[in-house]
Amino acid sequence: MTEKKINSAGLRGQSAGETALCTVGQSGSGLTYCGYDVSDLADNATFEEVAYLLFNGELPTTAELTQYKAELLGLRDIGQSLKDVLKLIPKDTHPMDVMRTGCSFLGNVEPEADFSQQRQAANRLLAAFPAIMCYWYRYSHEGLEIDCSSDEASLGGHFLRLLNGKTPSAQHERVMDVSLILYAEHEFNASTFTARVCASTLSDMYSCITGAIGTLRGPLHGGANEAAMDMIQKFKSPSDAKVQMAAMLERKEKIMGFGHAIYRTSDPRNVIIKAWSEKLAKQNGDTSLYDISVACEEFMWDSKKLFCNADFFHASTYNYMGIPTKLFTPIFVCSRLTGWAAHVMEQRSNNRIIRPSADYVGADPRKVIPIAQR
Amino acid sequence: MTEKKINSAGLRGQSAGETALCTVGQSGSGLTYCGYDVSDLADNATFEEVAYLLFNGELPTTAELTQYKAELLGLRDIGQSLKDVLKLIPKDTHPMDVMRTGCSFLGNVEPEADFSQQRQAANRLLAAFPAIMCYWYRYSHEGLEIDCSSDEASLGGHFLRLLNGKTPSAQHERVMDVSLILYAEHEFNASTFTARVCASTLSDMYSCITGAIGTLRGPLHGGANEAAMDMIQKFKSPSDAKVQMAAMLERKEKIMGFGHAIYRTSDPRNVIIKAWSEKLAKQNGDTSLYDISVACEEFMWDSKKLFCNADFFHASTYNYMGIPTKLFTPIFVCSRLTGWAAHVMEQRSNNRIIRPSADYVGADPRKVIPIAQR
Repeated sequence: MTEKKINSAGLRGQSAGETALCTVGQSGSGLTYCGYDVSDLADNATFEEVAYLLFNGELPTTAELTQYKAELLGLRDIGQSLKDVLKLIPKDTHPMDVMRTGCSFLGNVEPEADFSQQRQAANRLLAAFPAIMCYWYRYSHEGLEIDCSSDEASLGGHFLRLLNGKTPSAQHERVMDVSLILYAEHEFNASTFTARVCASTLSDMYSCITGAIGTLRGPLHGGANEAAMDMIQKFKSPSDAKVQMAAMLERKEKIMGFGHAIYRTSDPRNVIIKAWSEKLAKQNGDTSLYDISVACEEFMWDSKKLFCNADFFHASTYNYMGIPTKLFTPIFVCSRLTGWAAHVMEQRSNNRIIRPSADYVGADPRKVIPIAQR
Repeated sequence: MTEKKINSAGLRGQSAGETALCTVGQSGSGLTYCGYDVSDLADNATFEEVAYLLFNGELPTTAELTQYKAELLGLRDIGQSLKDVLKLIPKDTHPMDVMRTGCSFLGNVEPEADFSQQRQAANRLLAAFPAIMCYWYRYSHEGLEIDCSSDEASLGGHFLRLLNGKTPSAQHERVMDVSLILYAEHEFNASTFTARVCASTLSDMYSCITGAIGTLRGPLHGGANEAAMDMIQKFKSPSDAKVQMAAMLERKEKIMGFGHAIYRTSDPRNVIIKAWSEKLAKQNGDTSLYDISVACEEFMWDSKKLFCNADFFHASTYNYMGIPTKLFTPIFVCSRLTGWAAHVMEQRSNNRIIRPSADYVGADPRKVIPIAQR
């Protein structure tokens, strides 16, 4: 019985189906999308190419990419009723709740009528998420009703333009692009699995993605980069970081941004985003945030043999780019949407409803005692 | 490999965790909530008692029930901003999309700040769902901005009051009560499992329920009572029903409302709702809808050895009560919310993130070819 409990808890190590989209932690390569190592994609592709890859199984040709980017560009703006809903959401709302409601409402006004529209629905969400996030953020925080269209060449650049009201530097655009590639897909993680369970009842794309956003919202899943940022900002220097982290471990506090459910010795995404953090730090002149982050990395490895996951150096990277901390996890949504939607399409292509069993541990059979006699 | 595929598809028969809330299809009793047979609860309890049972593990005393019902009564009305969102949702929207967005938005304006508020959030949704459904329905279909408060004694009566603008008969109120009891809980079905996966990241109650609504929306899960109604209404008589159903089987069309993923010979909820359908038919005078339904039941048993599940006689029952067909599945939400929320609380009480593995069936490792050479 004990053995059974351990085995079934969290379905760890149990296969819940097949995928052609991703491998995580297999020997020789840490993370692959459709056979390509994530590092190779981060070096030699753009986020739109990765989205195309996940939705089609192959990287696009130049002509295919040009057409795809033009299609996405036409889908960036959002309608007035969605803007009206976003204006009704208070400033202090959790930004992931905003993304969840924005996605759900978009499914009200632009439903996926049948599965022949699945690609269209996925592309619409991919193109519109930056607008949903930034329209709400800038209205609630700055009182501005921003224009949600832009002609920035990439989705990463489009997001930075909506956030800051101006065209980003080529470097910031590329960093955002790499970041979106790194977060795009990660096999049967909890939010993706939610999307697949939802898809398995043959529900619509918007329901699947709305459910995935709600799952990513949980502090055990998304949000680690925000938590890492909150922590790093409290440290005054690299040496202060080590002293304070030791005290946190002493108090058995959870330190976010380290270790991983699947990876055992390193996260293949860390080296990539860490390099960008270092580069941005040097350009910034004030390298303290990067230096503190490195001190944290060294401390956690020396004391706990825990390595940085993808989230840790994303914190300082995003911060150097001037992105508000509360938008870190919504950016994750803008990226992971590609993996979620690809998994929904894959689930639909060979579906069986996902309906596991449970071990009953409750009351024995009993009779209802009428309320007057209770 | 083949064996592995069959075993992992849909997680059928695999345990995904423990529950004290429900048994389905165990010998001696078809369906139990916290040890009580659903028939016993339908005969000797009310829906509010069942909600209390699922949230607390025990049926309430008279004093506890009185207090609980007073609490729920105070939570029925919804605020202006939620009403404004509902008014923005078009008339032709899928009503389950309305429930999903209404639930998500309520989480924006009345968030569950931490888990100490989980009972409060569940009760809020339980009390407010009839208003979300009826406010949107009557505004979009009748142009009315209804008052969403009422002093009806039960939630079932409150729903009928908001839908029809008048106090329901005692009998209709009781039928709705029984219906809500029958749909309240059903172990690790797909929507409940979605709620648990979402809860396992320690996300908030509104995210979990929003995800569950989106999953119930799928035609393989909720919606069978609506599909059954659409079919029954096409049949002119019992004999016509048998002729047409034979033709449907011939064309290999799916017939909704029969058979079940877990039950093998009968659905324990059918006999209860079927008896109400018969009673309402006789009172109505025109029994044709009931007679046609019985003919369908006989035909499916004789030709396919398939039995009616809970959904089939719900169709005629709801129809005799004057409920629009498109609200059948949203009523399911008003009921199953109790099971979903109870499972969220249970998952939180002994949590491990639900993160299964996948069998990789995709491309072998490959190198990115620069786009100019593709």
